[in-house]
Amino acid sequence: MADEATTAVSDVATVDLLGLLAYGELTAFERMATDARMAPTLGDKIALASMATGEFSHFMAIHDYLRSRSIDPERAMEPFIPALTAFHNLTAPADWLESLVKAYVGDSIAADFYREIAAVLPGEPRELVLSVLADTGHAAFAVEKVRAAIATNPTLAGRLALWGRRLVGEALTQAQRVAADRDALTALLVGVGDLETLAAMFTRIIDAHGERMAALGLSA
Amino acid sequence: MADEATTAVSDVATVDLLGLLAYGELTAFERMATDARMAPTLGDKIALASMATGEFSHFMAIHDYLRSRSIDPERAMEPFIPALTAFHNLTAPADWLESLVKAYVGDSIAADFYREIAAVLPGEPRELVLSVLADTGHAAFAVEKVRAAIATNPTLAGRLALWGRRLVGEALTQAQRVAADRDALTALLVGVGDLETLAAMFTRIIDAHGERMAALGLSA
Repeated sequence: MADEATTAVSDVATVDLLGLLAYGELTAFERMATDARMAPTLGDKIALASMATGEFSHFMAIHDYLRSRSIDPERAMEPFIPALTAFHNLTAPADWLESLVKAYVGDSIAADFYREIAAVLPGEPRELVLSVLADTGHAAFAVEKVRAAIATNPTLAGRLALWGRRLVGEALTQAQRVAADRDALTALLVGVGDLETLAAMFTRIIDAHGERMAALGLSA
Repeated sequence: MADEATTAVSDVATVDLLGLLAYGELTAFERMATDARMAPTLGDKIALASMATGEFSHFMAIHDYLRSRSIDPERAMEPFIPALTAFHNLTAPADWLESLVKAYVGDSIAADFYREIAAVLPGEPRELVLSVLADTGHAAFAVEKVRAAIATNPTLAGRLALWGRRLVGEALTQAQRVAADRDALTALLVGVGDLETLAAMFTRIIDAHGERMAALGLSA
Protein backbone atom coordinates (compact mmCIF):
# COMPACT_ATOMS: atom_id res chain seq x y z
CA MET A 1 0.00 0.00 0.00
CA ALA A 2 2.75 2.42 0.93
CA ASP A 3 4.53 1.69 -2.32
CA GLU A 4 1.36 2.16 -4.37
CA ALA A 5 0.63 5.48 -2.69
CA THR A 6 4.19 6.64 -3.35
CA THR A 7 3.90 5.66 -7.02
CA ALA A 8 0.56 7.47 -7.39
CA VAL A 9 1.95 10.66 -5.85
CA SER A 10 5.07 10.41 -7.94
CA ASP A 11 3.00 9.93 -11.12
CA VAL A 12 0.82 12.96 -10.41
CA ALA A 13 3.94 14.92 -9.60
CA THR A 14 5.70 13.79 -12.78
CA VAL A 15 2.72 14.77 -14.93
CA ASP A 16 2.54 18.11 -13.09
CA LEU A 17 6.22 18.77 -13.66
CA LEU A 18 5.98 17.82 -17.34
CA GLY A 19 2.83 19.92 -17.78
CA LEU A 20 4.50 22.93 -16.17
CA LEU A 21 7.65 22.48 -18.24
CA ALA A 22 5.64 21.98 -21.47
CA TYR A 23 3.62 25.14 -20.98
CA GLY A 24 6.82 26.97 -20.06
CA GLU A 25 8.40 25.88 -23.34
CA LEU A 26 5.30 26.86 -25.32
CA THR A 27 5.25 30.34 -23.81
CA ALA A 28 9.02 30.61 -24.35
CA PHE A 29 8.38 29.88 -28.03
CA GLU A 30 5.68 32.55 -28.22
CA ARG A 31 7.75 35.10 -26.36
CA MET A 32 10.90 34.60 -28.46
CA ALA A 33 8.94 34.58 -31.71
CA THR A 34 7.21 37.80 -30.67
CA ASP A 35 10.48 39.35 -29.50
CA ALA A 36 11.93 38.57 -32.94
CA ARG A 37 9.73 41.42 -34.19
CA MET A 38 11.67 43.83 -31.95
CA ALA A 39 15.03 42.60 -33.27
CA PRO A 40 17.20 45.52 -34.42
CA THR A 41 18.69 43.62 -37.38
CA LEU A 42 17.59 40.90 -39.76
CA GLY A 43 20.38 38.66 -38.42
CA ASP A 44 19.09 39.10 -34.84
CA LYS A 45 15.57 38.36 -36.04
CA ILE A 46 16.67 35.09 -37.68
CA ALA A 47 18.68 34.07 -34.59
CA LEU A 48 15.69 34.63 -32.27
CA ALA A 49 13.25 32.88 -34.61
CA SER A 50 15.60 29.90 -34.83
CA MET A 51 15.85 29.66 -31.03
CA ALA A 52 12.06 29.96 -30.77
CA THR A 53 11.58 26.94 -33.03
CA GLY A 54 14.09 25.08 -30.83
CA GLU A 55 11.85 25.77 -27.83
CA PHE A 56 8.86 24.53 -29.78
CA SER A 57 10.57 21.23 -30.59
CA HIS A 58 11.28 20.84 -26.85
CA PHE A 59 7.62 21.49 -26.20
CA MET A 60 6.61 18.86 -28.77
CA ALA A 61 8.95 16.28 -27.18
CA ILE A 62 7.07 16.58 -23.87
CA HIS A 63 3.70 16.77 -25.64
CA ASP A 64 4.39 13.55 -27.56
CA TYR A 65 5.76 11.78 -24.48
CA LEU A 66 2.59 12.56 -22.50
CA ARG A 67 0.43 11.42 -25.44
CA SER A 68 2.41 8.17 -25.68
CA ARG A 69 1.47 7.51 -22.05
CA SER A 70 -2.22 8.28 -22.75
CA ILE A 71 -2.05 11.54 -20.80
CA ASP A 72 -3.80 14.56 -22.31
CA PRO A 73 -1.06 17.21 -22.70
CA GLU A 74 -3.57 20.07 -22.57
CA ARG A 75 -5.02 18.86 -19.26
CA ALA A 76 -1.50 18.47 -17.91
CA MET A 77 -0.64 22.07 -18.84
CA GLU A 78 -3.89 23.75 -17.79
CA PRO A 79 -3.18 24.10 -14.05
CA PHE A 80 -0.08 26.18 -14.83
CA ILE A 81 -1.55 28.61 -17.33
CA PRO A 82 -2.62 31.25 -14.75
CA ALA A 83 0.78 31.44 -13.02
CA LEU A 84 2.81 31.54 -16.24
CA THR A 85 0.42 34.03 -17.87
CA ALA A 86 0.57 36.28 -14.81
CA PHE A 87 4.39 36.09 -14.80
CA HIS A 88 4.62 37.10 -18.46
CA ASN A 89 1.99 39.83 -18.18
CA LEU A 90 3.78 41.33 -15.18
CA THR A 91 7.18 41.18 -16.88
CA ALA A 92 6.51 42.35 -20.44
CA PRO A 93 9.87 43.63 -21.74
CA ALA A 94 9.90 47.30 -22.72
CA ASP A 95 12.58 46.78 -25.35
CA TRP A 96 14.93 44.35 -27.08
CA LEU A 97 17.57 44.32 -24.30
CA GLU A 98 14.99 43.68 -21.58
CA SER A 99 13.63 40.80 -23.64
CA LEU A 100 17.13 39.29 -23.95
CA VAL A 101 17.79 39.61 -20.21
CA LYS A 102 14.40 38.09 -19.46
CA ALA A 103 14.92 35.13 -21.77
CA TYR A 104 18.41 34.46 -20.45
CA VAL A 105 17.90 35.07 -16.74
CA GLY A 106 14.35 33.78 -16.54
CA ASP A 107 14.76 30.64 -18.64
CA SER A 108 18.07 29.73 -16.99
CA ILE A 109 16.79 30.00 -13.43
CA ALA A 110 13.75 27.89 -14.39
CA ALA A 111 16.02 25.36 -16.12
CA ASP A 112 18.24 25.08 -13.01
CA PHE A 113 15.18 24.44 -10.90
CA TYR A 114 13.85 21.75 -13.28
CA ARG A 115 17.25 20.09 -13.45
CA GLU A 116 17.51 19.85 -9.65
CA ILE A 117 14.01 18.47 -9.31
CA ALA A 118 14.44 16.05 -12.23
CA ALA A 119 16.91 14.11 -10.07
CA VAL A 120 14.01 12.59 -8.09
CA LEU A 121 12.00 11.57 -11.20
CA PRO A 122 12.00 8.01 -12.59
CA GLY A 123 14.51 7.31 -15.42
CA GLU A 124 12.43 7.99 -18.54
CA PRO A 125 10.84 11.33 -17.60
CA ARG A 126 14.14 12.37 -16.00
CA GLU A 127 16.00 11.89 -19.31
CA LEU A 128 13.21 13.74 -21.15
CA VAL A 129 13.39 16.73 -18.79
CA LEU A 130 17.16 16.93 -19.06
CA SER A 131 17.07 16.70 -22.87
CA VAL A 132 14.48 19.47 -23.33
CA LEU A 133 16.47 21.76 -21.04
CA ALA A 134 19.37 21.75 -23.50
CA ASP A 135 20.24 25.36 -24.29
CA THR A 136 18.94 26.43 -27.72
CA GLY A 137 21.85 28.86 -28.09
CA HIS A 138 20.00 31.68 -26.43
CA ALA A 139 22.46 32.08 -23.56
CA ALA A 140 25.55 32.92 -25.62
CA PHE A 141 23.47 35.14 -27.91
CA ALA A 142 21.97 37.13 -25.03
CA VAL A 143 25.30 37.53 -23.22
CA GLU A 144 27.02 38.81 -26.36
CA LYS A 145 24.29 41.31 -27.25
CA VAL A 146 23.74 42.64 -23.71
CA ARG A 147 27.48 43.03 -22.99
CA ALA A 148 27.97 44.85 -26.29
CA ALA A 149 25.07 47.20 -25.54
CA ILE A 150 26.43 48.01 -22.05
CA ALA A 151 29.93 48.57 -23.45
CA THR A 152 28.45 51.18 -25.81
CA ASN A 153 26.17 52.72 -23.19
CA PRO A 154 27.26 51.94 -19.58
CA THR A 155 24.20 53.70 -18.08
CA LEU A 156 22.08 50.73 -19.28
CA ALA A 157 23.64 48.50 -16.60
CA GLY A 158 21.63 50.01 -13.73
CA ARG A 159 18.27 49.68 -15.42
CA LEU A 160 18.95 46.11 -16.60
CA ALA A 161 20.22 45.03 -13.16
CA LEU A 162 16.96 46.27 -11.60
CA TRP A 163 15.06 44.46 -14.33
CA GLY A 164 16.89 41.20 -13.48
CA ARG A 165 15.94 41.58 -9.81
CA ARG A 166 12.32 42.26 -10.69
CA LEU A 167 12.20 39.12 -12.86
CA VAL A 168 13.44 36.94 -10.00
CA GLY A 169 10.94 38.52 -7.61
CA GLU A 170 7.95 37.91 -9.91
CA ALA A 171 9.15 34.37 -10.66
CA LEU A 172 9.31 33.57 -6.92
CA THR A 173 5.83 35.00 -6.38
CA GLN A 174 4.36 32.77 -9.10
CA ALA A 175 6.39 29.76 -7.94
CA GLN A 176 4.84 30.12 -4.48
CA ARG A 177 1.40 30.27 -6.05
CA VAL A 178 2.07 27.01 -7.94
CA ALA A 179 3.51 25.37 -4.83
CA ALA A 180 0.40 26.31 -2.81
CA ASP A 181 -1.94 24.91 -5.49
CA ARG A 182 -0.16 21.70 -6.47
CA ASP A 183 0.50 19.44 -3.51
CA ALA A 184 2.04 16.65 -5.58
CA LEU A 185 4.60 19.00 -7.06
CA THR A 186 5.48 20.32 -3.62
CA ALA A 187 5.77 16.73 -2.39
CA LEU A 188 8.25 16.12 -5.21
CA LEU A 189 10.32 18.99 -3.89
CA VAL A 190 10.23 17.51 -0.41
CA GLY A 191 11.47 14.28 -2.02
CA VAL A 192 14.69 16.09 -2.91
CA GLY A 193 15.79 15.62 0.70
CA ASP A 194 15.77 17.17 4.16
CA LEU A 195 15.70 20.90 4.82
CA GLU A 196 19.46 21.16 4.64
CA THR A 197 19.51 19.49 1.19
CA LEU A 198 16.75 21.82 0.00
CA ALA A 199 18.57 24.88 1.31
CA ALA A 200 21.72 23.74 -0.50
CA MET A 201 19.70 23.35 -3.70
CA PHE A 202 18.33 26.89 -3.48
CA THR A 203 21.81 28.21 -2.73
CA ARG A 204 23.14 26.53 -5.89
CA ILE A 205 20.32 28.06 -7.97
CA ILE A 206 20.86 31.55 -6.54
CA ASP A 207 24.63 31.29 -7.02
CA ALA A 208 24.21 30.27 -10.65
CA HIS A 209 21.84 33.22 -11.13
CA GLY A 210 24.48 35.57 -9.71
CA GLU A 211 27.06 34.16 -12.10
CA ARG A 212 24.75 34.73 -15.07
CA MET A 213 24.08 38.33 -14.05
CA ALA A 214 27.84 38.83 -13.77
CA ALA A 215 28.31 37.29 -17.24
CA LEU A 216 25.91 39.95 -18.54
CA GLY A 217 27.95 42.61 -16.79
CA LEU A 218 25.18 43.26 -14.23
CA SER A 219 25.07 43.18 -10.44
CA ALA A 220 22.68 40.52 -9.13
CA MET B 1 26.93 37.59 -75.33
CA ALA B 2 23.16 37.26 -75.55
CA ASP B 3 23.32 34.03 -73.59
CA GLU B 4 25.55 35.55 -70.90
CA ALA B 5 23.24 38.54 -70.52
CA THR B 6 20.24 36.25 -70.23
CA THR B 7 22.00 34.19 -67.56
CA ALA B 8 22.95 37.31 -65.60
CA VAL B 9 19.38 38.63 -65.65
CA SER B 10 18.03 35.23 -64.74
CA ASP B 11 20.49 34.95 -61.83
CA VAL B 12 19.55 38.35 -60.44
CA ALA B 13 15.90 37.48 -60.89
CA THR B 14 16.32 34.11 -59.19
CA VAL B 15 18.05 35.68 -56.20
CA ASP B 16 15.32 38.35 -56.08
CA LEU B 17 12.59 35.74 -56.15
CA LEU B 18 14.29 33.65 -53.47
CA GLY B 19 14.94 36.75 -51.33
CA LEU B 20 11.29 37.80 -51.62
CA LEU B 21 10.04 34.31 -50.84
CA ALA B 22 12.47 33.93 -47.90
CA TYR B 23 11.38 37.18 -46.30
CA GLY B 24 7.76 36.23 -46.95
CA GLU B 25 8.28 32.94 -45.08
CA LEU B 26 10.07 34.69 -42.20
CA THR B 27 7.22 37.18 -41.78
CA ALA B 28 4.70 34.32 -42.08
CA PHE B 29 6.50 32.63 -39.19
CA GLU B 30 6.38 35.80 -37.10
CA ARG B 31 2.76 36.45 -37.91
CA MET B 32 1.57 32.92 -37.14
CA ALA B 33 3.63 32.74 -33.95
CA THR B 34 2.18 36.08 -32.84
CA ASP B 35 -1.35 35.04 -33.84
CA ALA B 36 -0.90 31.94 -31.68
CA ARG B 37 -1.24 34.31 -28.73
CA MET B 38 -4.79 35.19 -29.90
CA ALA B 39 -5.76 31.51 -30.19
CA PRO B 40 -9.02 30.82 -28.32
CA THR B 41 -7.92 27.37 -27.08
CA LEU B 42 -4.68 25.67 -26.13
CA GLY B 43 -5.18 23.21 -29.02
CA ASP B 44 -5.49 26.08 -31.52
CA LYS B 45 -2.40 27.69 -30.04
CA ILE B 46 -0.37 24.49 -30.49
CA ALA B 47 -1.66 24.05 -34.06
CA LEU B 48 -0.68 27.61 -35.03
CA ALA B 49 2.72 27.36 -33.36
CA SER B 50 3.39 24.10 -35.19
CA MET B 51 2.53 25.66 -38.55
CA ALA B 52 4.70 28.67 -37.72
CA THR B 53 7.72 26.43 -37.18
CA GLY B 54 6.91 24.78 -40.54
CA GLU B 55 7.17 28.20 -42.19
CA PHE B 56 10.47 28.78 -40.44
CA SER B 57 11.93 25.55 -41.77
CA HIS B 58 10.88 26.67 -45.28
CA PHE B 59 12.65 29.94 -44.64
CA MET B 60 15.79 28.12 -43.51
CA ALA B 61 15.77 25.94 -46.66
CA ILE B 62 16.00 29.07 -48.85
CA HIS B 63 18.46 30.72 -46.47
CA ASP B 64 20.79 27.72 -46.58
CA TYR B 65 20.47 27.37 -50.37
CA LEU B 66 21.52 31.00 -50.88
CA ARG B 67 24.42 30.55 -48.45
CA SER B 68 25.55 27.40 -50.31
CA ARG B 69 25.79 29.54 -53.47
CA SER B 70 27.80 32.23 -51.61
CA ILE B 71 24.88 34.65 -51.70
CA ASP B 72 24.19 36.69 -48.54
CA PRO B 73 20.57 35.81 -47.59
CA GLU B 74 20.11 39.08 -45.70
CA ARG B 75 21.13 41.15 -48.73
CA ALA B 76 18.83 39.09 -50.92
CA MET B 77 15.89 39.79 -48.57
CA GLU B 78 16.55 43.46 -47.85
CA PRO B 79 14.95 44.94 -51.00
CA PHE B 80 11.61 43.36 -50.07
CA ILE B 81 11.40 44.39 -46.44
CA PRO B 82 9.57 47.71 -47.08
CA ALA B 83 6.82 46.21 -49.26
CA LEU B 84 6.18 43.22 -46.98
CA THR B 85 6.32 45.38 -43.83
CA ALA B 86 3.87 47.85 -45.36
CA PHE B 87 1.54 45.03 -46.36
CA HIS B 88 1.52 43.57 -42.85
CA ASN B 89 1.18 46.94 -41.13
CA LEU B 90 -1.77 47.84 -43.35
CA THR B 91 -3.47 44.48 -42.79
CA ALA B 92 -3.05 43.81 -39.07
CA PRO B 93 -5.87 41.38 -38.16
CA ALA B 94 -8.32 42.68 -35.56
CA ASP B 95 -9.08 39.21 -34.23
CA TRP B 96 -8.43 35.49 -34.51
CA LEU B 97 -10.77 34.92 -37.51
CA GLU B 98 -9.28 37.80 -39.49
CA SER B 99 -5.83 36.35 -38.84
CA LEU B 100 -6.94 32.92 -40.14
CA VAL B 101 -8.47 34.43 -43.29
CA LYS B 102 -5.36 36.49 -43.85
CA ALA B 103 -3.01 33.54 -43.46
CA TYR B 104 -5.09 31.34 -45.75
CA VAL B 105 -6.08 33.84 -48.45
CA GLY B 106 -2.88 35.86 -48.40
CA ASP B 107 -0.39 33.01 -48.26
CA SER B 108 -2.26 30.97 -50.87
CA ILE B 109 -2.46 33.76 -53.43
CA ALA B 110 1.25 34.45 -52.93
CA ALA B 111 2.02 30.72 -53.24
CA ASP B 112 0.06 30.49 -56.52
CA PHE B 113 2.02 33.42 -57.89
CA TYR B 114 5.37 31.90 -56.85
CA ARG B 115 4.40 28.53 -58.32
CA GLU B 116 3.53 30.07 -61.69
CA ILE B 117 6.73 32.10 -61.84
CA ALA B 118 8.87 29.16 -60.64
CA ALA B 119 8.17 27.50 -64.00
CA VAL B 120 10.70 29.80 -65.70
CA LEU B 121 13.46 29.23 -63.11
CA PRO B 122 16.35 26.80 -63.65
CA GLY B 123 15.88 23.28 -62.21
CA GLU B 124 17.48 23.58 -58.77
CA PRO B 125 15.87 26.83 -57.55
CA ARG B 126 12.60 25.73 -59.17
CA GLU B 127 12.51 22.56 -57.07
CA LEU B 128 13.42 24.58 -53.97
CA VAL B 129 10.59 27.06 -54.54
CA LEU B 130 8.05 24.30 -55.11
CA SER B 131 9.17 22.41 -51.99
CA VAL B 132 8.97 25.42 -49.64
CA LEU B 133 5.48 26.23 -50.95
CA ALA B 134 4.18 22.94 -49.56
CA ASP B 135 1.18 23.70 -47.34
CA THR B 136 2.06 23.48 -43.64
CA GLY B 137 -1.51 22.41 -42.85
CA HIS B 138 -2.73 25.95 -42.44
CA ALA B 139 -5.29 25.76 -45.24
CA ALA B 140 -7.43 22.93 -43.83
CA PHE B 141 -7.14 24.39 -40.33
CA ALA B 142 -8.29 27.87 -41.44
CA VAL B 143 -11.15 26.54 -43.55
CA GLU B 144 -12.47 24.40 -40.70
CA LYS B 145 -12.29 27.17 -38.09
CA VAL B 146 -13.72 29.94 -40.29
CA ARG B 147 -16.60 27.79 -41.60
CA ALA B 148 -17.48 26.72 -38.05
CA ALA B 149 -17.47 30.34 -36.86
CA ILE B 150 -19.73 31.46 -39.72
CA ALA B 151 -22.10 28.53 -39.11
CA THR B 152 -22.47 29.73 -35.50
CA ASN B 153 -22.72 33.39 -36.40
CA PRO B 154 -23.69 34.02 -40.08
CA THR B 155 -23.32 37.80 -39.77
CA LEU B 156 -19.53 37.28 -39.69
CA ALA B 157 -19.55 36.38 -43.39
CA GLY B 158 -20.00 39.96 -44.59
CA ARG B 159 -17.18 41.41 -42.55
CA LEU B 160 -14.77 38.57 -43.42
CA ALA B 161 -15.61 38.81 -47.16
CA LEU B 162 -14.76 42.53 -47.09
CA TRP B 163 -11.57 41.67 -45.23
CA GLY B 164 -10.62 39.18 -47.97
CA ARG B 165 -11.10 41.84 -50.65
CA ARG B 166 -9.04 44.34 -48.71
CA LEU B 167 -6.20 41.82 -48.37
CA VAL B 168 -6.08 41.26 -52.13
CA GLY B 169 -6.17 45.01 -52.79
CA GLU B 170 -3.25 45.73 -50.44
CA ALA B 171 -1.29 42.76 -51.81
CA LEU B 172 -1.67 44.07 -55.38
CA THR B 173 -0.57 47.55 -54.30
CA GLN B 174 2.62 46.18 -52.75
CA ALA B 175 3.22 43.82 -55.69
CA GLN B 176 3.15 46.80 -58.06
CA ARG B 177 5.65 48.59 -55.82
CA VAL B 178 8.00 45.57 -55.97
CA ALA B 179 7.54 45.25 -59.75
CA ALA B 180 8.41 48.93 -60.24
CA ASP B 181 11.58 48.63 -58.12
CA ARG B 182 12.96 45.29 -59.27
CA ASP B 183 13.47 45.15 -63.03
CA ALA B 184 14.97 41.65 -63.00
CA LEU B 185 11.94 40.24 -61.23
CA THR B 186 9.61 41.94 -63.70
CA ALA B 187 11.73 40.55 -66.55
CA LEU B 188 11.21 37.10 -65.07
CA LEU B 189 7.47 37.66 -65.27
CA VAL B 190 7.79 38.68 -68.91
CA GLY B 191 9.71 35.42 -69.40
CA VAL B 192 6.52 33.55 -68.52
CA GLY B 193 5.28 34.26 -72.05
CA ASP B 194 3.37 36.71 -74.24
CA LEU B 195 0.56 38.91 -72.96
CA GLU B 196 -2.04 36.24 -73.57
CA THR B 197 -0.05 33.71 -71.48
CA LEU B 198 0.34 36.28 -68.71
CA ALA B 199 -3.36 37.11 -68.75
CA ALA B 200 -4.19 33.40 -68.52
CA MET B 201 -1.83 33.11 -65.55
CA PHE B 202 -3.55 35.95 -63.68
CA THR B 203 -6.95 34.46 -64.50
CA ARG B 204 -5.85 31.14 -62.97
CA ILE B 205 -4.62 32.92 -59.82
CA ILE B 206 -7.84 34.94 -59.45
CA ASP B 207 -10.01 31.86 -60.07
CA ALA B 208 -8.14 29.90 -57.40
CA HIS B 209 -8.63 32.82 -55.02
CA GLY B 210 -12.39 32.77 -55.69
CA GLU B 211 -12.48 29.04 -54.98
CA ARG B 212 -10.69 29.55 -51.66
CA MET B 213 -13.08 32.30 -50.60
CA ALA B 214 -15.97 29.96 -51.47
CA ALA B 215 -14.34 27.18 -49.42
CA LEU B 216 -14.38 29.58 -46.47
CA GLY B 217 -18.06 30.27 -47.15
CA LEU B 218 -17.30 33.84 -48.30
CA SER B 219 -18.07 35.74 -51.51
CA ALA B 220 -14.90 36.80 -53.34
